[in-house]
Amino acid sequence: MSRKIRYGMVGGGRGAFIGAVHRIAANIDGQIELVCGAFSSSPHKSRASGKDFFLPAKRCYGTFQEMIEKEAVLPAEERMDFVSIVTPNHMHFPPAKMALENGFHVLSDKPATFDLKEAKALEKLVKKTRCLYGLTHNYTGYPLVKEARDLVAAGKLGKIRKVVVEYPQGWLATRLETTGQKQAGWRTDPKRSGAAGCIGDIGTHAENLAEYITGLKIKELAADLTAFVSGRKLDDDGNVLLRFIGGAKGVLHSSQISVGEENNLNIRVYGERGGLEWHQNEPNTMLLKWPDQPMQVYRTANG
Amino acid sequence: MSRKIRYGMVGGGRGAFIGAVHRIAANIDGQIELVCGAFSSSPHKSRASGKDFFLPAKRCYGTFQEMIEKEAVLPAEERMDFVSIVTPNHMHFPPAKMALENGFHVLSDKPATFDLKEAKALEKLVKKTRCLYGLTHNYTGYPLVKEARDLVAAGKLGKIRKVVVEYPQGWLATRLETTGQKQAGWRTDPKRSGAAGCIGDIGTHAENLAEYITGLKIKELAADLTAFVSGRKLDDDGNVLLRFIGGAKGVLHSSQISVGEENNLNIRVYGERGGLEWHQNEPNTMLLKWPDQPMQVYRTANG
Amino acid sequence: MSRKIRYGMVGGGRGAFIGAVHRIAANIDGQIELVCGAFSSSPHKSRASGKDFFLPAKRCYGTFQEMIEKEAVLPAEERMDFVSIVTPNHMHFPPAKMALENGFHVLSDKPATFDLKEAKALEKLVKKTRCLYGLTHNYTGYPLVKEARDLVAAGKLGKIRKVVVEYPQGWLATRLETTGQKQAGWRTDPKRSGAAGCIGDIGTHAENLAEYITGLKIKELAADLTAFVSGRKLDDDGNVLLRFIGGAKGVLHSSQISVGEENNLNIRVYGERGGLEWHQNEPNTMLLKWPDQPMQVYRTANG
Amino acid sequence: MSRKIRYGMVGGGRGAFIGAVHRIAANIDGQIELVCGAFSSSPHKSRASGKDFFLPAKRCYGTFQEMIEKEAVLPAEERMDFVSIVTPNHMHFPPAKMALENGFHVLSDKPATFDLKEAKALEKLVKKTRCLYGLTHNYTGYPLVKEARDLVAAGKLGKIRKVVVEYPQGWLATRLETTGQKQAGWRTDPKRSGAAGCIGDIGTHAENLAEYITGLKIKELAADLTAFVSGRKLDDDGNVLLRFIGGAKGVLHSSQISVGEENNLNIRVYGERGGLEWHQNEPNTMLLKWPDQPMQVYRTANG
Repeated sequence: MSRKIRYGMVGGGRGAFIGAVHRIAANIDGQIELVCGAFSSSPHKSRASGKDFFLPAKRCYGTFQEMIEKEAVLPAEERMDFVSIVTPNHMHFPPAKMALENGFHVLSDKPATFDLKEAKALEKLVKKTRCLYGLTHNYTGYPLVKEARDLVAAGKLGKIRKVVVEYPQGWLATRLETTGQKQAGWRTDPKRSGAAGCIGDIGTHAENLAEYITGLKIKELAADLTAFVSGRKLDDDGNVLLRFIGGAKGVLHSSQISVGEENNLNIRVYGERGGLEWHQNEPNTMLLKWPDQPMQVYRTANG
Repeated sequence: MSRKIRYGMVGGGRGAFIGAVHRIAANIDGQIELVCGAFSSSPHKSRASGKDFFLPAKRCYGTFQEMIEKEAVLPAEERMDFVSIVTPNHMHFPPAKMALENGFHVLSDKPATFDLKEAKALEKLVKKTRCLYGLTHNYTGYPLVKEARDLVAAGKLGKIRKVVVEYPQGWLATRLETTGQKQAGWRTDPKRSGAAGCIGDIGTHAENLAEYITGLKIKELAADLTAFVSGRKLDDDGNVLLRFIGGAKGVLHSSQISVGEENNLNIRVYGERGGLEWHQNEPNTMLLKWPDQPMQVYRTANG
Repeated sequence: MSRKIRYGMVGGGRGAFIGAVHRIAANIDGQIELVCGAFSSSPHKSRASGKDFFLPAKRCYGTFQEMIEKEAVLPAEERMDFVSIVTPNHMHFPPAKMALENGFHVLSDKPATFDLKEAKALEKLVKKTRCLYGLTHNYTGYPLVKEARDLVAAGKLGKIRKVVVEYPQGWLATRLETTGQKQAGWRTDPKRSGAAGCIGDIGTHAENLAEYITGLKIKELAADLTAFVSGRKLDDDGNVLLRFIGGAKGVLHSSQISVGEENNLNIRVYGERGGLEWHQNEPNTMLLKWPDQPMQVYRTANG
Repeated sequence: MSRKIRYGMVGGGRGAFIGAVHRIAANIDGQIELVCGAFSSSPHKSRASGKDFFLPAKRCYGTFQEMIEKEAVLPAEERMDFVSIVTPNHMHFPPAKMALENGFHVLSDKPATFDLKEAKALEKLVKKTRCLYGLTHNYTGYPLVKEARDLVAAGKLGKIRKVVVEYPQGWLATRLETTGQKQAGWRTDPKRSGAAGCIGDIGTHAENLAEYITGLKIKELAADLTAFVSGRKLDDDGNVLLRFIGGAKGVLHSSQISVGEENNLNIRVYGERGGLEWHQNEPNTMLLKWPDQPMQVYRTANG
């Protein structure tokens, strides 16, 4: 392609968390550019945020509806190519739906939708349009996660037998949501987060990482979800036994009450011929394990 | 006491594994001495082993029965005080029983007995005699394991919420038991090991460590045990969800097919106010975790 | 500023190493944009490289002279603001000089110049113009390196007593430069690298890191530089004793023959009241050391 | 030998530090027994200490002279075989000398003597007698240190080029010797410690470890020793450049003012074909480094 890909963002204005992460990721290789946004439900705030990104006021919209409508009628050489959605969970599906219906590709923060019904509608819609739909499980972007997947796919570990995947955090060990902390607020609120708390917020990353690296699909599971903090409506900790199609077994646990843990996503995979271990805290290092030989510390080039 | 404590050993002759571990542990502080033994079922081998420990031939017995009978009639200032049992699982209870019945204290390698029936008989017997009965879960002997227990007991971590305990090994990832390897042989044989394979051999250490450090008792569990290696009769991997009395939850998994793992017992405990982490691979280091503060690396004095 | 800063790059075309690093760094926060370049001494290659970055052919120049001359006469709202120099060492000063003389700010890869004479000329020139001159010691860009500097400056460690800084690599343990490997070629060639080999290439990063974090200046040193690989003209290993103004002492060693080390830059700083340790292999972790207290593992927010 | 080896100890009574370490080490394999001692210069204290070890009062002597004299005239089947010396530095040579002169082997804590003159006298004496003289550099006793030495000797790393050996401690970062702390007292006192402080106390362990593992001898060195703590007479920190016979180079640094370090002895050795790294904080792990391959984490059997 002889030009940069252009995108518009829904959410991610001043004070937001994940929007900035998406923008940085989009910037890194210089192939994509932000051209418009509905950064906030307040048109004024949306324009203020857009100014931070050097966008003209006319392309800083007050709602995603306005953005999609107005961008759709811009000339082809100017209008956005895809929509990036970085709002809280309950606001993922509506802009995705409208974007797809108007011929824009979609890149959405996880989860795809608020509930199963929306998910099924989304699936149907994506199949019908010719648009691309991408869901950002960001941890699969690490070079060594991709390398881990390749190692398994190439059969270096042999048939996979066991997977241990963990995602402990500690930041919700007390009832932070009552202090006005914005991130804690929507994540512990069933109306904005959905039916799941911790297991949906981060357990899904663990599940995604396990399936992504091993190429296996979970067949059955037994889960024990708990809300440890008094008064909390959604789970803040979960332990899960996993059975994969093909016979592998596993353990997944995620937590937001594991005091002192910040963002300690990690995975271990054991096959008949070898094993691997990766921690997002030290993402440029992967441990490789072999029968009757010392463990290897595999590093990316800059490590 | 103005003299060393004296003990006799059942098992642990030349070529055995755990007997030497017991002797080293007994030697370290210079308070105990080995005075006799039934080191092998062959009287000749028993004497040869005893010679390695500078024991006189007359106190190297051919059977534990002989040892207990003959020691029982020695003068008090000479005879053994207790019996150390370091045989395979099916031979734990018989010498323990006879020792207790003859007034000798017992220190037995785990498991206490081969099955539940024996265990109940042992319990009854211990209660009846005035003898002491000790079971060696060796990992609780590490200074930092004791310190971890003390930290929890002193309330430094607050009420315990979550426990993650793991014991992965990889040495049975192939069918080693068919090669004549002695340790693999009895551990995978239901007649000598009992009803459990991996979960009994090492999962019990994990369970013991979790209860020892937290002071909590397991109330309920859901386990998924697997024999991954074709033709193996006993489990070689197990994943378990734990619920403790008082509300704590946890995960325990142990494995003998986790390729590349040697003896990687480890535990993490999270309470309302703090957490801890310990790995037997680096037993002189314990990680302490606190809300909103950096993790601490706590070392024993020589570390 | 209500627009992005614009820059032109000298060097960094297809097949180059450090140019891509500079472009990524420039992209991340979305405040800067690449608008032109003399990416190669071949005008054809320069245009091909520029196309990778979506630059129009007319702003892909064949030489830095051409770039500076032509950009200087573009309208203010279009022309570059600064020049980024990412060529081998002997080509750092000439474009910097010409850029400064034509009113462009300069951001140069280290070292600033090929020799001391050039360095003094550069110093004079920078003082004379009103332009900014920046030298990229990239490792100081890590968040925790900046935090380390702040910790020392705030007196948290007390008066600094000892610094240990290391930069071991192993990639030149054999005579790679005779195989046509481009990076090894110029780095071991006195005509392109300058008077120093390893100590100039990476020892300088170690020196920079030590002075950057501690705020101290080296007063005296004793160095033992060696060319271990037979036939090599420049040092590939160096050990240095350091004395800082104010009384701190230290050790610096860097190496390109430390087999198995990739890019293991690290530093330890000890003051009267505390110490710190940082490794670029795990750049989001810093160890903090205190008297009579456990070491702390300090992590950046995502860690 | 069909009996245990018997030894007597000089020093090491209640309240002492290194004596207990020697006794534990002697106990472990059950081949040696403590039969007598001059544990303290007070006969009363000596007997009290001996009682802790179940020794009869008559073999708990008030002075090493008395011990050597009386043991020398005991019957062969009863008297000690060797003397273990665990006193402060200035009291190493006198008992060693007398023991050797009376036909007893000697195992002495390091350093062998207080000064060079004594060392030369000791050398002469050892050559004259048929007795064995052993000096305990305890760190060479670790299994992996011996394995490291074997790896180098077997040529696995190729010709050795570079050695980095460190021994940082932090316990003397303040003037602890003025508080009555016994260990700090004699170590910082030239009359009891000798001409060297830190470099003699622990730098020697680093030097010993480097020569032990590599089999190389130091030919030349340049050292920068410092007493950082005001009023201290002996060095508490030292940085040293090393040159070995045969061309290898190295760095040695030891410190007692590196705040937060407990006993962090470690070494890295790089040869033409491979490298190794060992830390006494985690003594059962050794890192092996190879060209163009991931680093290996080599563990002892229990690791």
